[in-house]
Order: sequence, then structure tokens, then C-alpha cells
Amino acid sequence: MTVTLDLAGLHGSLSDPLLDSMNFLNEIVARHPDAISFAPGRPYDALLDTSAITQALDAYTEYLAEERLFTKEQIARQLMQYGPTNGIIRDLIARAVALDEGIKAPPEAFVITAGCQEGMLLVLRALFADPGDVLLVASPCYVGITGAARLLDLAVEPVLEGEHGLAPEAVAAAAQRIRAQGRRPRALYLVPDFSNPSGVNLPARARQALLDVAAEQDLLILEDNPYNFFYSYEGDPRPTMKSLDREGRVVYLGSTAKSAFPGARIGYVLADQSVRRADGSTTLLADELSKIKSMTTVNTSPIAQAVIGGILVRNGGGLRAAAEPAAAFYRENLARLLASLAKHFRPEPGGVAGVGWNHPEGGFFVVVTVPFAADTAALERAAAEFKILWTPMSDFYLGDGGARQLRLSCSAVPADQVDEGVRRLAAFVAAQAADAGAADATG
Amino acid sequence: MTVTLDLAGLHGSLSDPLLDSMNFLNEIVARHPDAISFAPGRPYDALLDTSAITQALDAYTEYLAEERLFTKEQIARQLMQYGPTNGIIRDLIARAVALDEGIKAPPEAFVITAGCQEGMLLVLRALFADPGDVLLVASPCYVGITGAARLLDLAVEPVLEGEHGLAPEAVAAAAQRIRAQGRRPRALYLVPDFSNPSGVNLPARARQALLDVAAEQDLLILEDNPYNFFYSYEGDPRPTMKSLDREGRVVYLGSTAKSAFPGARIGYVLADQSVRRADGSTTLLADELSKIKSMTTVNTSPIAQAVIGGILVRNGGGLRAAAEPAAAFYRENLARLLASLAKHFRPEPGGVAGVGWNHPEGGFFVVVTVPFAADTAALERAAAEFKILWTPMSDFYLGDGGARQLRLSCSAVPADQVDEGVRRLAAFVAAQAADAGAADATG
Repeated sequence: MTVTLDLAGLHGSLSDPLLDSMNFLNEIVARHPDAISFAPGRPYDALLDTSAITQALDAYTEYLAEERLFTKEQIARQLMQYGPTNGIIRDLIARAVALDEGIKAPPEAFVITAGCQEGMLLVLRALFADPGDVLLVASPCYVGITGAARLLDLAVEPVLEGEHGLAPEAVAAAAQRIRAQGRRPRALYLVPDFSNPSGVNLPARARQALLDVAAEQDLLILEDNPYNFFYSYEGDPRPTMKSLDREGRVVYLGSTAKSAFPGARIGYVLADQSVRRADGSTTLLADELSKIKSMTTVNTSPIAQAVIGGILVRNGGGLRAAAEPAAAFYRENLARLLASLAKHFRPEPGGVAGVGWNHPEGGFFVVVTVPFAADTAALERAAAEFKILWTPMSDFYLGDGGARQLRLSCSAVPADQVDEGVRRLAAFVAAQAADAGAADATG
Repeated sequence: MTVTLDLAGLHGSLSDPLLDSMNFLNEIVARHPDAISFAPGRPYDALLDTSAITQALDAYTEYLAEERLFTKEQIARQLMQYGPTNGIIRDLIARAVALDEGIKAPPEAFVITAGCQEGMLLVLRALFADPGDVLLVASPCYVGITGAARLLDLAVEPVLEGEHGLAPEAVAAAAQRIRAQGRRPRALYLVPDFSNPSGVNLPARARQALLDVAAEQDLLILEDNPYNFFYSYEGDPRPTMKSLDREGRVVYLGSTAKSAFPGARIGYVLADQSVRRADGSTTLLADELSKIKSMTTVNTSPIAQAVIGGILVRNGGGLRAAAEPAAAFYRENLARLLASLAKHFRPEPGGVAGVGWNHPEGGFFVVVTVPFAADTAALERAAAEFKILWTPMSDFYLGDGGARQLRLSCSAVPADQVDEGVRRLAAFVAAQAADAGAADATG
């Protein structure tokens, strides 16, 4: 007799639709390779070139040899042995974050992680001590953070975004409500620049106001910022919340997946908060995150770190200049996508009633509102009949929300497919709206 | 005012001595670079050669191009894009495990992980659903598993090893005791081949008997096997528990840190158990682990996977032959260590009373019993006065145990330092025993 385990006897996260939704989406995408896909938020394939890997490895080892005076044996140890849990490129990442984002912090305040996802897991594990600790998240929300919270059985409370992103007063009200329940609102997670999935760019004034709310309500802010190289408009990007942070309220989650490439799986956490021990001594929160990391992945592959380190030393210390070809592609593709939406979705009369979309000023994502349930059944039809793929917005909500919305990503679709993709989308929306209208009329 | 967090308000694992002990040990080791060190269980530095990295990357891309007929664009996507959560080298790892260990399992039953540590975390998270679920561990125990359990707030019960490792009847008794308490003994973790830290090699009969106990008690077995290439004696190694497993009781945790090198951070889990969903459909446990992995690290760096994949294709599909120079070094160094112990620790009369050690037939570790507390104070003295480093065995016990024992590792010390190291150790033990005796006499 062979052992069969019951799913119901495994951890609850495995029965949660949250962890299934992305798998299910990937499965539909995989089943329709001939479709034009606005679904994945991944970088554009044609920007990837494997010669960058060996060039970067060479640049990093040259940097070790020439600038840090490492011997051949020391280089081998650095790249191939167990290494420090908090990483070997903290100094290079600290310099890059200063150059690229204007965030000044010492290398000791960083932990290099196996992708930003591990950073989220470490931060949540460190900060959440008690069943009454609550994580606030902007809603709709990136599933990486809610999924990590689910693994740790943490309580999560969504705070609905408005048209201009999170309203600081809504966060304050949520924190007060949670505290009134005898629970502790511990931290707020958000993506201020071109949020995934809503594409909204939080106004500068709201960033400052959220920091004020965090101080009043004794919240930490988990700022996740993968898209801030990808502004569409001229002029300076909005300040990161971390760069405005005078009190140490912000834990900054960094990714190189979009600014360099995903396969390195290099993220980082900037956690410069002080932690006070019982004996009065202090450490940095980054040190505490490292202790947790020693029990999740021990250390991040130094080979992967070396690749990112090499890209940094090859590019004057930052990633912004190296990422400019990618940024230009995304900027132009977003403009194409918005132009095609305006072209193919005609206004009423003549067009489909109840269709609209937002106009993000950068990033990867546009949200389209449709007059029918944008669910997986609709997605299956769009894929099978119209050869077009997108993501249901409802996947990004805890509980209800986003039922009649879909997310379009401009990041992974070739430029010459955008217009045809939107044409197909418009045809699908018209057909589905007509059927839904007919069903309403007869139902 | 700047935010200061209280350690007491962070997750309990961060106040647990368990997570601190390894950091503390590393800190002492770092403070005494001139000491001879039997402390770290890491591979020998001089076995590492960075040219292996690029050779392996080249071999893997050549394999993709020539055997799998990948285009240049497909290769770039494979190495640099987001990839499947369960990994890109599952087929190569499945073949290696079949060749090296005689374990036959399909690629779909594997998940490639960011080091074996992540594999432990995934398995624990999947299997432990309820506060009453209990993990049994061989005691003394590798801290990676107890630390991962601590992060997830899991209940852990140690089962003491005897001279020949875990006694199956002790495991059965522990499981019965736990069940009598209304809790569920869920899984047993052990390292059958040359356990870390005890060095014990579990007899073949005990392996089979433990499988029988697992069946009777409805336990899963988490078999961690980093050292099974490192037998000192001629002839076949003992069968892995997974190779004896007819029922699917064993989840096999694999590492390439010792058989290839640590810096790739590539581990794997073989989890071929069936999981039944509420609708009667089944998946593999490996699929469920992948869902959890999507929320810990998304996917393991494909560059790191490519390095291990390249080493495999360069070596006829397995790692055993490639690891033979390392295995020869460890074999000879263990023999040197045991010979030096016999030479420098003279028997009574004349020698120090109460000193003894075990005689592992392979692996990295020897346990020495001493007539005083082998604690961090003793280690500090050994390092400062005698320039010799080792690991307190008490670090590997939950609760009491190992107070008068220390672990010596032969893996990281140069061959020509072993004898001098043991000479210093003997001098330290004599001095510390004399002082402890004097303290006993006057105390």
C-alpha cells in the first residue's frame, strides 16, 4: 500500500485559492502559446542576452582582483564556498541604491535575498510575533506578499485603493479599527510606483501623508519598488518613501528582476531600523533578518550575486543607465497599449457600454473595466476564441473586488503585437458583453 | 525620533538561542583566523576552482543547444527569465539520483531548491497543518531543520541517538507518547549516513526497521543525505532509506553543497507521495511544495541550476565520479584525524581520564567526550590560548545534552594541520581538565 496524503491534512495555504490562482493562470497561458499575451508581468524576452552573464561574472572577479586585491583562492572562496548570510554584494547594492534612488544607507543595513520574494518572507517572519499582529495591504495587491503572509498564517487586512492609490486616511482608519479590536496593526505593504496590479503611481503628497499616518499609528511601511525605473514622463520620478523617511518607518524591498533580469534571483531588503535586546544592546533589523535567512536559504548564491555585482561595476555602480534600453521599451510599449485602447474601444454610441481603463504614467500595467465578469471562464474564452490573454483583477483581491476588471501588462508583448492584441481584446469584449447582455435580458 | 523595535516584539525565533548559536560560533571562528579550525562542516577550500563555473555554464548551454535543440533565444530565456517554480534541471537531477544513489523517481517528483535548507522549509510548511503536529528529530540534530521548524512555530520532539544512531523502538515509543497526548507525530527527520553532528552511520537493519516503524505509526521520514559520497571503507555504501522505501514514506532531501560546491546553493526535494484533493483528483507532494516555493523564492536561480546541470552533463550524468577527489580528501583527512586522536590522547594512566571519541566510518564529523563542560567559555579559551577551534555538541541538542562533548570536523582543515590541531586540542583538554578537576576539588 502506498501512502496518499490528504490535501486537507496539509498546511492550509495549499487549499487556499490564493496560491492556486497564479498556477492556474500560468497553466492557461501555457495552453495557448499562439495567443497574444498581456498576462505576464515579466520582462521582455528580447532584452535578455546570455553574454551578459559571463561578462558580468568576469567583471565581478576582475573587480575582486583589482579593486579589492583578492587572491585567486579568495575569489574561489567568495564565489563557491558558503558565505555570509547577509550577502557579499551589500556594499555594491548600497552604492547602487544611493546612486539610483537617492537612498543613503550603510551596507550593514542591507540583506541580499534570493529574489525579492524571500525578502518579503524574512520581513514578515521577523515583524509578526503574535496572532493579533495584522498586515495591512493596499488592495488590489501583489500576490507575493499575501501569499507569503498565508504561509506564515498571518492576519491580513486589505485597504482599498482609490483612483490615486491608497488614501492615507483610509490606512489610518483601518489601523484604528484593528487596534479597537485589540489587535496590533504592524505594517503596511504597498508598491508606490506603478503598483502591481493597478498601475497607480502614488502622489508625492500621499507618500508623505502615509509616513505621517505610520508615525501616528505606529506602523512600519514595507515599500516594494520594482517599477520605479519605468516612468513614462519626463522629469524626476517621485521620491521613494524610503528617501522621505526620517524616522526609520520604511523597510525597503528591492528587486533586480526588472532592472537587470529575473534569472539572477537577486533581491535585497534595506532594514536600517534599530532593534533593542533585553540587555539594552542594539542590532539592526537587517541582522535579525539575516538570522531568519540562515533558516530559509542559508545564503544567496554568490554566483548569482556576482552576476548582479558585475553588472553594477560595469555600469558605474548603478542599474539605471544599464536598464535604460528596457525602460525605453516599456515606455514605448505602454504608450502603444494606451493608444491602441483608445483606437479599438470606441466610445458610445457605437462602442461597448461600461468599458474604461486607467492611464498609468509608467510601469507595466493598465486596468480595463468591462461590463461582465472578467473571471477564468471569460479568460478561457478569450484565449480559445480570440487568442488573447490577460489577468483577472479579482485574483489580486482578498475577498471580493475586481470582478469586472482585467489587468493588461505591456512588459512581455512584442511591440508589433500590441495593436493586434488590443484589436482582439476589443472583439472579445464586444462578444462577451453582447452575450452577457443577452443573458441579463433573458435571465 | 527614530523607530526602535524591541526584540521581544519580533518573532520568537529571534530570541531563541537556537538561531543565535551558529552566529555566535561563526563570530568566534572569525575572531581567530590564526587558529586551526575543526569547527566548520564546510567543504575544503582548496577543492574549489572558479574555472569550474564557466566550464559548467558552457557545458549546460551546449547541452541545451545540441541535445535539446534550444535556439539562442530559448537559451537566454531558460537562463535569465522567470522559470518554472519546480526547476529547470529536474530531469538531470532525477538521472543523477538514479545513477548515484540507485533511487528511481520521475523528474516530476523533484523540486529544485535554493539549497537544501529551502527544501526543509518547504517540506515542513507543507506537512505541518496544525499546532498538534509534531516533528521528531534524531538528537543531537542538525540545526537547519530545528531552526526551520522554529521559524514556523512547529512542535519538535527529540529522540536520542544511541551509539549506533537512532533506535527504531525509541522512535516508535516517542510516536506513541505523542499520540497519547492527543497530538499527531507527523514526520521524523534524520541523516542516516554520517549524521551531522554525531558522525554515526545508521546500520542497514535499522534503516529498514525505521521504515517499518514509520508505517506502523503513520509517520513520514525526512531523509537528509549530504554525506553519502563520503564512505571511508571499501565496498558499497549502505542503502539510502529512499531506495528501501516501498510505501512512499520517505521524502528525500538532497544537497549539492558537498558533492559539487556550496556556492551554487542548489538542493532538491524528492517528494513522490500522492496528495488527494477534495474532488478525488491527485497531485504529487512535489507539486504542493512548488506552490509553497512560489511564495518563498519563486524559483531557484536558473544560472545556479545551470552550473550544477553543467557539472552533471560534463560527468556522465552523476556527481559521484566528479566528487571523487573531494571524497578522497575527506576519507584521508578523517583517517588522519582518528590517527592523531589515538596518538595525542594517551590512555590512562598518563592520559586524561574521561576522554573518548567515536570512530565514524565516513563523513565529516567525530565526537570527542571530555571531562569538563565543552561550552562557549571553554571554546573561547581553546581559541585564545591554544589556537584551536571546535563546536560545542550542546548546540545540537534541544534542551540538555552534549554538555561534555565537542564536534570535530575534518572537512575544512588542511591535511598538514590535522596532527598539529589534535596536539593543540590535547593540550587544551589536559589544561581544562586539570582546572576543572582543581575547581571540583576546591569547589
